[in-house]
Amino acid sequence: MRRAEPIERTGTTFDPVFDADLVRRALAEDIGRGDITTEATIPAEAVANGRIVAREAGVIAGLPAAALAFRLLDPVVRFEALIADGAYVEAGATLARIEGGARALLTSERTALNFLGRLSGIATLAARCAAAVAGTRAVVVDTRKTTPGLRALEKYAVRVGGAANHRAGLDDGILIKDNHIAAAGGVREAILRARAHAPHLLKIEVECETLAEVRVALEARAEAELLDNMDIETMRNAVSYIREHAPSVLVEASGSIGTNTEKLVAVAATGVDFISLGALTHSAPNIDISLEFA
Amino acid sequence: MRRAEPIERTGTTFDPVFDADLVRRALAEDIGRGDITTEATIPAEAVANGRIVAREAGVIAGLPAAALAFRLLDPVVRFEALIADGAYVEAGATLARIEGGARALLTSERTALNFLGRLSGIATLAARCAAAVAGTRAVVVDTRKTTPGLRALEKYAVRVGGAANHRAGLDDGILIKDNHIAAAGGVREAILRARAHAPHLLKIEVECETLAEVRVALEARAEAELLDNMDIETMRNAVSYIREHAPSVLVEASGSIGTNTEKLVAVAATGVDFISLGALTHSAPNIDISLEFA
Amino acid sequence: MRRAEPIERTGTTFDPVFDADLVRRALAEDIGRGDITTEATIPAEAVANGRIVAREAGVIAGLPAAALAFRLLDPVVRFEALIADGAYVEAGATLARIEGGARALLTSERTALNFLGRLSGIATLAARCAAAVAGTRAVVVDTRKTTPGLRALEKYAVRVGGAANHRAGLDDGILIKDNHIAAAGGVREAILRARAHAPHLLKIEVECETLAEVRVALEARAEAELLDNMDIETMRNAVSYIREHAPSVLVEASGSIGTNTEKLVAVAATGVDFISLGALTHSAPNIDISLEFA
Amino acid sequence: MRRAEPIERTGTTFDPVFDADLVRRALAEDIGRGDITTEATIPAEAVANGRIVAREAGVIAGLPAAALAFRLLDPVVRFEALIADGAYVEAGATLARIEGGARALLTSERTALNFLGRLSGIATLAARCAAAVAGTRAVVVDTRKTTPGLRALEKYAVRVGGAANHRAGLDDGILIKDNHIAAAGGVREAILRARAHAPHLLKIEVECETLAEVRVALEARAEAELLDNMDIETMRNAVSYIREHAPSVLVEASGSIGTNTEKLVAVAATGVDFISLGALTHSAPNIDISLEFA
Amino acid sequence: MRRAEPIERTGTTFDPVFDADLVRRALAEDIGRGDITTEATIPAEAVANGRIVAREAGVIAGLPAAALAFRLLDPVVRFEALIADGAYVEAGATLARIEGGARALLTSERTALNFLGRLSGIATLAARCAAAVAGTRAVVVDTRKTTPGLRALEKYAVRVGGAANHRAGLDDGILIKDNHIAAAGGVREAILRARAHAPHLLKIEVECETLAEVRVALEARAEAELLDNMDIETMRNAVSYIREHAPSVLVEASGSIGTNTEKLVAVAATGVDFISLGALTHSAPNIDISLEFA
Amino acid sequence: MRRAEPIERTGTTFDPVFDADLVRRALAEDIGRGDITTEATIPAEAVANGRIVAREAGVIAGLPAAALAFRLLDPVVRFEALIADGAYVEAGATLARIEGGARALLTSERTALNFLGRLSGIATLAARCAAAVAGTRAVVVDTRKTTPGLRALEKYAVRVGGAANHRAGLDDGILIKDNHIAAAGGVREAILRARAHAPHLLKIEVECETLAEVRVALEARAEAELLDNMDIETMRNAVSYIREHAPSVLVEASGSIGTNTEKLVAVAATGVDFISLGALTHSAPNIDISLEFA
Repeated sequence: MRRAEPIERTGTTFDPVFDADLVRRALAEDIGRGDITTEATIPAEAVANGRIVAREAGVIAGLPAAALAFRLLDPVVRFEALIADGAYVEAGATLARIEGGARALLTSERTALNFLGRLSGIATLAARCAAAVAGTRAVVVDTRKTTPGLRALEKYAVRVGGAANHRAGLDDGILIKDNHIAAAGGVREAILRARAHAPHLLKIEVECETLAEVRVALEARAEAELLDNMDIETMRNAVSYIREHAPSVLVEASGSIGTNTEKLVAVAATGVDFISLGALTHSAPNIDISLEFA
Repeated sequence: MRRAEPIERTGTTFDPVFDADLVRRALAEDIGRGDITTEATIPAEAVANGRIVAREAGVIAGLPAAALAFRLLDPVVRFEALIADGAYVEAGATLARIEGGARALLTSERTALNFLGRLSGIATLAARCAAAVAGTRAVVVDTRKTTPGLRALEKYAVRVGGAANHRAGLDDGILIKDNHIAAAGGVREAILRARAHAPHLLKIEVECETLAEVRVALEARAEAELLDNMDIETMRNAVSYIREHAPSVLVEASGSIGTNTEKLVAVAATGVDFISLGALTHSAPNIDISLEFA
Repeated sequence: MRRAEPIERTGTTFDPVFDADLVRRALAEDIGRGDITTEATIPAEAVANGRIVAREAGVIAGLPAAALAFRLLDPVVRFEALIADGAYVEAGATLARIEGGARALLTSERTALNFLGRLSGIATLAARCAAAVAGTRAVVVDTRKTTPGLRALEKYAVRVGGAANHRAGLDDGILIKDNHIAAAGGVREAILRARAHAPHLLKIEVECETLAEVRVALEARAEAELLDNMDIETMRNAVSYIREHAPSVLVEASGSIGTNTEKLVAVAATGVDFISLGALTHSAPNIDISLEFA
Repeated sequence: MRRAEPIERTGTTFDPVFDADLVRRALAEDIGRGDITTEATIPAEAVANGRIVAREAGVIAGLPAAALAFRLLDPVVRFEALIADGAYVEAGATLARIEGGARALLTSERTALNFLGRLSGIATLAARCAAAVAGTRAVVVDTRKTTPGLRALEKYAVRVGGAANHRAGLDDGILIKDNHIAAAGGVREAILRARAHAPHLLKIEVECETLAEVRVALEARAEAELLDNMDIETMRNAVSYIREHAPSVLVEASGSIGTNTEKLVAVAATGVDFISLGALTHSAPNIDISLEFA
Repeated sequence: MRRAEPIERTGTTFDPVFDADLVRRALAEDIGRGDITTEATIPAEAVANGRIVAREAGVIAGLPAAALAFRLLDPVVRFEALIADGAYVEAGATLARIEGGARALLTSERTALNFLGRLSGIATLAARCAAAVAGTRAVVVDTRKTTPGLRALEKYAVRVGGAANHRAGLDDGILIKDNHIAAAGGVREAILRARAHAPHLLKIEVECETLAEVRVALEARAEAELLDNMDIETMRNAVSYIREHAPSVLVEASGSIGTNTEKLVAVAATGVDFISLGALTHSAPNIDISLEFA
Repeated sequence: MRRAEPIERTGTTFDPVFDADLVRRALAEDIGRGDITTEATIPAEAVANGRIVAREAGVIAGLPAAALAFRLLDPVVRFEALIADGAYVEAGATLARIEGGARALLTSERTALNFLGRLSGIATLAARCAAAVAGTRAVVVDTRKTTPGLRALEKYAVRVGGAANHRAGLDDGILIKDNHIAAAGGVREAILRARAHAPHLLKIEVECETLAEVRVALEARAEAELLDNMDIETMRNAVSYIREHAPSVLVEASGSIGTNTEKLVAVAATGVDFISLGALTHSAPNIDISLEFA
């Protein structure tokens, strides 16, 4: 978990997750040529105090992004986080206290809350799904179905919620799908080519839709198998087969599984190592979070 | 509605909605240092055909963004849209046919679909909410609760779905809230300051939580009033009062209204001009759209 | 008016007017690969004191931009403004004292002064034009005829000088011109389309060249009318007509009015609300300002 | 002189003068989130024809920038220049014909004209000043007193008008001023340091305010001398002294000379090689140029 | 191997290796404010033909970067590659024929050749080292000791030369070094943490300096071991031990091995899977390549 | 020589040599989406101490770039340089002590060392070549054969090593080559055009391959002559001729001279002013520098 302290620093440092340029672009798209209402009505020297409050229960994620948004408008803002990202809070909980220029706080409020609401929504959904399979071998993981431009933040929210990350992009893992296999002329051929081409620290995963494909991929020395859109029965058979013949091979269930708890429990019961869920990032509803001024 | 034709052009032109830099950043975050699987298994000269297919019914939005994603990897890709953004389609409908370099299509597929799925989700929700109040005076509008970095696209999806846009940012409309009023020393004072400061083509809207505030804002010559978190009865009284005393003043209902149809109908029945819904952009579930290769 | 204090902050904060990237680009175009003369002749550790002095009388604008230029080369420079932007000074007045690395001051001097000279030129001309119509209803406003890349700063200088801003760009106001009317099929049709398309907090202004057009636009419920290139007599009649039939409609005089005082007085006497002057930003002569070292 | 033909190309190529990023930023600051009026009233498929017309006589500069502005909105626009940059035209002359998407033309019109008006203003003033000293040895040159962000374009306009460029920035020429001399411990010392530090293809110029300084600089082997704020008599003596003792040394007159023809003639008559004029770029009034649709 | 054909496309497409922005920055740093010599002496309309010629024997890499450099100055340049990247050529060989604007060719020549010379130097050294261990199990791989800003290109040159790539950065592979082990509290603990934190498609490699460490890492289930700075005898023992106890574990030799052929042969003879060589990218001498005009 | 002190500042200031954006891009290409190993194994709050140590003797260059790399990850890092750039050190020397966040140090280590190793390699080679000709009139200078993207740093390393810089790019010096001469219609014509076109503070150098060309260039008033690929005897004759007829003309030897000491001595003995060596920047082997933690 990130410490509270680095919040103060994120703006000026190189940070692949809490990227100041990303927050700056978000501020720019909201502020445009200036916050006319605030500039007209709030004296430049006014100072304000506020509390960031969760209006719904959930797992919080994104406080460093919110802090960064405020700090980019007021470099000496005081942002005091009362909880850390990853904490579960009840409705009404105060997440942070903030004190700074009144104009800066009012102008950056919406951007800060837009980050917080979305990321907390993802963390909350991730936490619920992870809890559903707690006690099993299965780990809930995300996918590449993220919001364009926000992948690092959304994958961070998934981790903060207690689920795990699948590959971050097309370059840090090999996932061979049917089109790759067809073009390469077979599973074995595709795996050989991947091994010859890619850096040797990347494992090779192959997507399989049938038991037959599971077997072929295993023979071709796949290091992980993605069971795509299989029914529970087939999935269970696939897992058994893989465990028996190649115990070190990782098994992932995927394909429109959704976030329904019963479905997750059933999938986990097949013995897979990973359950990947696009919905974690593409359909998590927002958590309602607001800024209340003293 | 945008024509199909400009799809071919968006990449090289200046377009505040379909911004090539935004799509390029989305590609970059997915591709990173290269699509290792595709480069290893697909010959560089291979060509592929595919169809973009909706797996769920909905209103489609984002085809130009998808086309742009493909075209940034293959400048001579053929992208033939069969429908235009804004069309309602049933599950299984083909949205576009595409032909181009096999590597390019596979590598940009996820980015293209991530845009399409999110924007179509928003357009679909916007269409449903707009339909709920059809026949009334009320227009459903969005808010500034958009995904950081995607505001222009999300507001476009709202329009495409048949709802309308509230102000695009803090600079193209004046919305005076309680904090502005308190700092300025009263509603009248806040409105005067806003009028003195802002370009004269911007109208002044004031947020009101009670009938008393509604009256004060009217006296101060507000040009629009936002009724915030009022119950239906109060809202109806507020509308009556405003229509009687200042028929040209615009009235907006806001505050946790949600996308429930009955609630929307009830709010619209009060006679307001606008119903603003944050959920349109912050909590619309994704529409499942896929790319199927021939 | 901006406080002196934020000068110290502008570099690291998000500011749509005093944008650090803009000042950085200005420094880069002057410095290129390095200030060879200064690096060769001034020791790296030398410290210098200087005064920014107006060599001509005028209204000063741009001190925060100058401070930013110096601070981007020497982050611990001391920049003490003796006046604030908007002050009228006589020739010879000291505007600010500055102390910092001698190399930094010499290298950024020209960039700082280029901002100050241009913006003070605009503020001075704006002040003169505003004074010409003081006591009348008319407000002098600027146009979109600004220097490419400097619009926010130049519109700031106009405000600082005591005149006001027209719309900031094509997106924060609706101004329907003859080509728009022709393409839409008439004034009424154009206004209806604009109202249907644009966010509802934007007013609709229509350009009129004759009294007939003034009447038609009024009937179509324009919220502001721009009287383009009318002679004084016609303008007076247009104003009378509008005041009589729609007292809340704003009236703007425009079109090659120029900055001649007598002309401004005559136009103001017609009773218009606004007089827009492209010359404020496109033809204001520089104010001569220099940096004098102790 | 630039050919008409490259106008078609400038957008996609690397060009240090007609930089597409600069024009794109200019478009962005005007268009913001979109040209609401045009999008609402002009059909997307409408095509328009127009002529760029000079409303005042002058020397034209900036047609490639205007073409680039139009082309960035409509990549297949037809822009046919009837004259080339550098041509003198009378009021009413058509500079170019243009045909393209009606929306694109209307939306980019102001940006294109803002470039043309400013650059033609500079070229016209440069041409007048150059004509004033025609037949003498003196060449009129510009200074670094240019508009922040537009230096390359403004120096191009100076050339196009028939005057010449002084150094482009702090890195392509050595100009030693009094502060440099003081810090280095004398003229000779400053020149030695400059020669030791800078690339050997850069000449060394020294600023002199008195005849005594002229002599010292000559002894120290300056390759060019800038006579700063000297009266005509002193300047003439300085030139004589330099011609006699070091005929290859270049002599420049500078310092508040202004653009008055008689003053220019008098300065040129002293025999200097160069007369540098800040006013060429910082105070040239705009040339009024418009776009007229057919 | 990349096809010759994509050379024509790289400029306008998204390409993580041949990144147009990188080439544009390289052009910008060479051209600055313009190629004064060429603009002064070469007519704008002149066309030229040239041949890119290797003055030394070697393996060529970087033709697409060279083509891109030329094309960014002349979008219709004809660049005809006679060989593809990866070809070995003798001194005097013609690599490509080129025809385009004479100014464009002269101005981009140095940038194009700087890419070609460096990348061909790396490819040539990689080819020599790969040849040295041909016939053994060992694969020569690069490191992260690349030129800042050029990693993707330099790793491409390594592949083109016939060697392979180690991880591309800190994010696509796990390499646990002594500092990581110390901070985590032991090898086993470090590996467990890495497995819990990182995406599951990344393998875990551990750096070992002694046989004892080799054994501990193996027990902790490392998936690859880096033998750092071991003598040949120790290395051979380490390999034997690993092959016996965990045949699927990858073994890499590293640490100041250098590019001496005899040393490479000796290291390969120990049976390692990989030999990593920083010198491939940080110390490869340039290959002399020139552009000769017809 | 740069002071140690500015190291602390370079990150936030505008610096054409130690450009923070360049270092940020270098960090980004190494770190990608995050340093997985370090994040997994090193506690966020851990602090570390280390020493930067030269493993080989050499002239050090690049400490400010290294400091900047560390500081961009940890803004409060303590970086204490024990020597300044330009110092010659023996193998084993400590260059700097560093204390900061353990994660930050480990993550930025490679980027910092990649800058240091390359720049010190160049400085060391430059120092050796400069020493070879010490006591003669000849100054060793670099060329434009630099690594794309690193020119300012590499030319800085050349200076730090004790050699000098030729022109920085195509815009700060005029070097007329055979193609320019052919296109212009002769040496005299080319020089006249260059003088008419370029800012007057740039000297004109002409490339000559024969004594005949040397004479022609002299007659045409070239201010510097580059003797290209001449044998020692011809070079000596060229120098004699030039000294006799135009003592102020600068003479440069160039063309595959290489860094062999005897060759350098022989070339210097001909009496040339400058010896330009591409190898200084394109083929200098790295200096091995490491970071050792306490």
